[in-house]
Amino acid sequence: MNNIFTTELKKLYNVFTEMGNAVSDQIKQATESYVNHDKAAAQALVQQDQSINSNEVDLEKQALTLMTLQQPVADDFRNVITILKASSDLERIGDHATGIALETIRVKGLQRNDDVEAKIASLTKTIRGMLTEALTALQAINMEQAQTVAEQDQEVDAQFDEIRRTITAAIQDDPAVAEAGASYLMVTKLLERIGDRIVNLAEEMVYNQTGEIVELNQGRLHPNN
Amino acid sequence: MNNIFTTELKKLYNVFTEMGNAVSDQIKQATESYVNHDKAAAQALVQQDQSINSNEVDLEKQALTLMTLQQPVADDFRNVITILKASSDLERIGDHATGIALETIRVKGLQRNDDVEAKIASLTKTIRGMLTEALTALQAINMEQAQTVAEQDQEVDAQFDEIRRTITAAIQDDPAVAEAGASYLMVTKLLERIGDRIVNLAEEMVYNQTGEIVELNQGRLHPNN
Repeated sequence: MNNIFTTELKKLYNVFTEMGNAVSDQIKQATESYVNHDKAAAQALVQQDQSINSNEVDLEKQALTLMTLQQPVADDFRNVITILKASSDLERIGDHATGIALETIRVKGLQRNDDVEAKIASLTKTIRGMLTEALTALQAINMEQAQTVAEQDQEVDAQFDEIRRTITAAIQDDPAVAEAGASYLMVTKLLERIGDRIVNLAEEMVYNQTGEIVELNQGRLHPNN
Repeated sequence: MNNIFTTELKKLYNVFTEMGNAVSDQIKQATESYVNHDKAAAQALVQQDQSINSNEVDLEKQALTLMTLQQPVADDFRNVITILKASSDLERIGDHATGIALETIRVKGLQRNDDVEAKIASLTKTIRGMLTEALTALQAINMEQAQTVAEQDQEVDAQFDEIRRTITAAIQDDPAVAEAGASYLMVTKLLERIGDRIVNLAEEMVYNQTGEIVELNQGRLHPNN
């Protein structure tokens, strides 16, 4: 790997990690706006999502320039393509976070269920931990860490099941919460999808190392996915 | 663009289109197994998903070899990266279809709602039409067709809203359908996410042509996303 390529690749990884941290904040703020029924915060997040998308544009342009000018060998290509695919995952995670923010507009004014909202906040915490782990694994090329991410996703799936059961039971007790319940289910599903996307990030890293596309988490073949 | 590159690129597009058609069948069969409460068909689909994933592995290997051996210029890179990203979208659409099939296991034996199930079948039809359109747009590099795909997604979002309202109302009338209702919401959400992914495919094509990442469907900034 020539020096210019190595230096430029390092820059790409840094841009990617910054993008990842921005997305992690976005997830945090989206769930906060949702559980606080804060429409103003939700609307601000929808605007913010555009900047995440433009980060991806910049990253792709840099990657393309790098590949064209440096004419890398196969392994170097794989590094660049891994970052491109992972950044595409980050951008879609940002879309899911925006989806959560937008649910705030629907849930506002509906009958709340504090238990469910607390569980959604806790699920968000688990998911942001996973994302941090995945970003580190990708930059450090740490295979064990990639596996940990997949294991954490099974915890996410378990929390999803629990929340789904809680919501269903709450609606059966009181049909008046059906509309809020539908919104809770949507947000929980979006969080669970974010978890899957974070597993994708870890899988990208394994692909980068092994050249094999793997499904780290067979939990993806779980009824909730 | 040298001749070997052109020929190999054409092959890549063909592999991609075959993968797309396989995914379209997968969506059809997943919804059928779901609305027919056919567990055996659902389980067969879960197995089938692995072959879609291996298609993506093959496609990525071909793309990598092509880029390494042919050392293409920037525009050629963009073509290859477009196919790589689009094939990754197809693979995730396949995962969503598997998610629908797996919901069959949950809904089996629960109180049914024929109206909702009919609407889910109709939404599936719309979505498969979108996918066919997107695959053609990508191969023919047809910008108008890419825009049509985004417009169709707004129809998908409208159908999603309608189904969500129907389910919520049905649960309010009879809390006994809450559990089936939750499953219907999950499947409808998965179908709506598939619609978004198909818009991604169209966006990849626009990116391929313009070098700009666009959000064709501002409907993505819709409460359901």
